[in-house]
Amino acid sequence: MSTNNCALLVVAHGSRREASNDEVRKLAELMASKAGSRFTMVVPAFLELALPSIPDGIEHCIQAGASEVMVLPYFLSAGRHVAEDIPAEVNIKRLQYPQVPISIAAYLGSDDGIADLMLGLV
Amino acid sequence: MSTNNCALLVVAHGSRREASNDEVRKLAELMASKAGSRFTMVVPAFLELALPSIPDGIEHCIQAGASEVMVLPYFLSAGRHVAEDIPAEVNIKRLQYPQVPISIAAYLGSDDGIADLMLGLV
Repeated sequence: MSTNNCALLVVAHGSRREASNDEVRKLAELMASKAGSRFTMVVPAFLELALPSIPDGIEHCIQAGASEVMVLPYFLSAGRHVAEDIPAEVNIKRLQYPQVPISIAAYLGSDDGIADLMLGLV
Repeated sequence: MSTNNCALLVVAHGSRREASNDEVRKLAELMASKAGSRFTMVVPAFLELALPSIPDGIEHCIQAGASEVMVLPYFLSAGRHVAEDIPAEVNIKRLQYPQVPISIAAYLGSDDGIADLMLGLV
């Protein structure tokens, strides 16, 4: 789904600790610098405790010209947040913008590449 | 610190959802299959809500012959769990086994490689 004019929304849980939210914002910036022309923008959003919310993040992408949005959960496990809460938030905007395809990608923890990344830390 | 007889303890938060804990156990298995001779064992442990605890995980490594333990936090942000709770749990065993070096590696979220991994998901 990496077509022209596709925005990437990086969704984290959100924290009361603003430094943790800033880590996510920096990750989105780093991803934007690496994404090349695959995504016209990479935007951070938070399920709770931080802003923008997921609906507000999607709204921002659409207002900025995205014709398509890919939601990417920055989560390690397939718990309720990934299985239910994120889809519920995304559906709010799917109903509002039926003409804009909004997809949800696999969550970070589902990638076997994490094993190599972890081993690279030690 | 990847010397002979070093055990790697992969520490996750732990979840009430056992499937999430199993994801961590599978990750430790995958890491063991990839670690080659760098670590004599790769063992999962949990800060809370699941077993083994961090002290019990370290105890297991030492009883299984590890002369050194590397603790690797499977966490995305540098919050209180990474900064305070994990070191406090590790210190219990450092006091009990002063002759066994127990180190704590950087947490997963600190690795810029996450940006590439995330982009690989979309």
